[in-house]
Amino acid sequence: MIYADYNGSAPLLPAVREYLRKRIDSDLFANPNAIHSMGQKVFKGIEKCREIIADVVGCYPDQVVFNSCSSEGLSHIFHSLLSFAPSEKKMIVTSPVEHVVLPSAFSYFVERLGFNIKNVLIDAEGRIDLSDLENILQKDSARIALVSIMAVNNETGVIEPYEAIAKLCQQYGVDYVCDTTQLIGKGEFNFATSGVDFAVCSGHKVGALTGTGFLMAKDPTKLRPYVYGSYQEHGLRGGTQNYIGIETLAVAMKEFEREKSRLPDLKKMRLAFEEKVIRACPNAKVIASAADRLAGTTLIGYPGLHGQAVQIELESHDIFVTTSAACADNQPETSKVLKAMGISDDLGRSVIRISLSTSHGERDYDSLASNLIAAYNKLSRIHSY
Amino acid sequence: MIYADYNGSAPLLPAVREYLRKRIDSDLFANPNAIHSMGQKVFKGIEKCREIIADVVGCYPDQVVFNSCSSEGLSHIFHSLLSFAPSEKKMIVTSPVEHVVLPSAFSYFVERLGFNIKNVLIDAEGRIDLSDLENILQKDSARIALVSIMAVNNETGVIEPYEAIAKLCQQYGVDYVCDTTQLIGKGEFNFATSGVDFAVCSGHKVGALTGTGFLMAKDPTKLRPYVYGSYQEHGLRGGTQNYIGIETLAVAMKEFEREKSRLPDLKKMRLAFEEKVIRACPNAKVIASAADRLAGTTLIGYPGLHGQAVQIELESHDIFVTTSAACADNQPETSKVLKAMGISDDLGRSVIRISLSTSHGERDYDSLASNLIAAYNKLSRIHSY
Repeated sequence: MIYADYNGSAPLLPAVREYLRKRIDSDLFANPNAIHSMGQKVFKGIEKCREIIADVVGCYPDQVVFNSCSSEGLSHIFHSLLSFAPSEKKMIVTSPVEHVVLPSAFSYFVERLGFNIKNVLIDAEGRIDLSDLENILQKDSARIALVSIMAVNNETGVIEPYEAIAKLCQQYGVDYVCDTTQLIGKGEFNFATSGVDFAVCSGHKVGALTGTGFLMAKDPTKLRPYVYGSYQEHGLRGGTQNYIGIETLAVAMKEFEREKSRLPDLKKMRLAFEEKVIRACPNAKVIASAADRLAGTTLIGYPGLHGQAVQIELESHDIFVTTSAACADNQPETSKVLKAMGISDDLGRSVIRISLSTSHGERDYDSLASNLIAAYNKLSRIHSY
Repeated sequence: MIYADYNGSAPLLPAVREYLRKRIDSDLFANPNAIHSMGQKVFKGIEKCREIIADVVGCYPDQVVFNSCSSEGLSHIFHSLLSFAPSEKKMIVTSPVEHVVLPSAFSYFVERLGFNIKNVLIDAEGRIDLSDLENILQKDSARIALVSIMAVNNETGVIEPYEAIAKLCQQYGVDYVCDTTQLIGKGEFNFATSGVDFAVCSGHKVGALTGTGFLMAKDPTKLRPYVYGSYQEHGLRGGTQNYIGIETLAVAMKEFEREKSRLPDLKKMRLAFEEKVIRACPNAKVIASAADRLAGTTLIGYPGLHGQAVQIELESHDIFVTTSAACADNQPETSKVLKAMGISDDLGRSVIRISLSTSHGERDYDSLASNLIAAYNKLSRIHSY
């Protein structure tokens, strides 16, 4: 079995399973805000996890706010910056290749609070046009409430120039919210040196428990509470802390720190795999092949076939992939991201996404290549539509 | 060891631990929104859990929205009802004994969106004055955006007349948001027959994983997304579903269904325990002793002593209690709830909260009684202040 949907959700890491096995049998369950020693032990555990995670992502512990996932983190950040924005700042600068959380959140601010959206141009690989962004900032920085552009695209794996974006935003004094969901735990990221003002992480993407996550804020005083409560997370995120989840986040991030030296190898294997498939099936096409992409992500299509047919064919060989984004966006049509990149329907409808991790090796990619080539050969003889 | 802080947070139930032991070693980890069969299996598991939980709490599965905790649920409901309220409905009716989530959330709506708060009168036991509520509704129902009054007080365990409140709200056509965090999993509750419009649950209060929860909505179309995303939870709660957490919620709720026949016994033991302590220490006082309270909750004080001293004394005998609410509210002063009930500082500062579950028996209460009596005898000879 090859589970090749790590961009959708990662299985629990072996180290996390090992940790949970012991944790479940312990007696240390208590409200971390209670004054008794059990509560205080749980609380200290959370703070220790915060230090471990801050160390891995390159920020200060008090810049980390634990929550339930990236979607909550982004919703929280947007509320903080937009619901409290001065009345002259009504412009949101973003891109047409963002995760669905962004347009979904922004529609509230557009419809109810009078904001307007400005999309930065992208090139054919889905990369942000930095000069277009600079023009927008130059012209309108006094009216811009925030810039929100992702670090890595979830469908294509394309790495956006987020450090250059951060520099521009800093230059023009605009807050930069960077959706780092697909980067953290899958690629090198350092919050401090990146220069971004806000970043997010979802635990289930990095092999921690589902329902866990955190946001990072360069200046946490810019945040306002969103999930209301008491003093938890310095008053920025109410609700009894998800301490078991937070502990698994720390285990997973520590594990990533250990494993990340294998990322260049993963990238090499991924590129060799892509080359092998293209050589065998010249009609196939790797999306954004000219762009720098996440080590283990391939979005590949075969014009005329249907992505779902390829996905089902692979599944019959115990290989699990998705068509474009896994996240509730499995429509039998070209995804919004690919449309924005100017990709034809013929190619766009045919894509599957293969996303692996540093736990995978040559054998996995060999099996993926031979099965994908076989699928293409079989299906291209039949034609899906 | 007696962990007597179930109102603060419950340890994982034995059935949940047993479930997790197997779950961790399984291979079924995937994004429930993916189209491959692993994702679909996870998705079907979530829907099965929704049915189990809906059955236990007496609602329809599509009235359940999974989230991360009660605090998120309440924040979500308030946003849905208040940010979208018609301009003439600017009044929030609530009580002075609510959990801190409510005043914390309402301060945003008061300060930023021009809402105003009307507190319903309470009696000396902390119970809502229904005739005062009816007067308010009669006078102002056209201006009221919502009524939010808890089902059970987290500090005192007092059960509010939430069914009567629901009836009044229905009569005057006002939405009733009921904070059921302390009731669900600790007392009988049926969403349909209760008549409340919105209710909430936190998993860690019922022995499921931390960071889990759900809200119930009589009419889910009144909800607007708060954690933004895609089609998850019918578009009402974004973010990849916390499926492992949701599974433990279903296990815990099923377990509660099995255990709830023991609630009357727990109540009997709790009342006998209180009587025993008062008989031995006539200066001690059970707060809200005349009110109907949660089966396993006792808030007890001894004027002149300090609650924290009693808590520490008990902890030296491996008994873990809190002073008033555990939830980040452990100030060395009378809690807001007790102040609202008109309780003197002398008594208010002395209280400790003992909260047990149906897993406890006579031996636990015997040990609690002898240790508490000994603590009172010892400390009252010294005097805390």
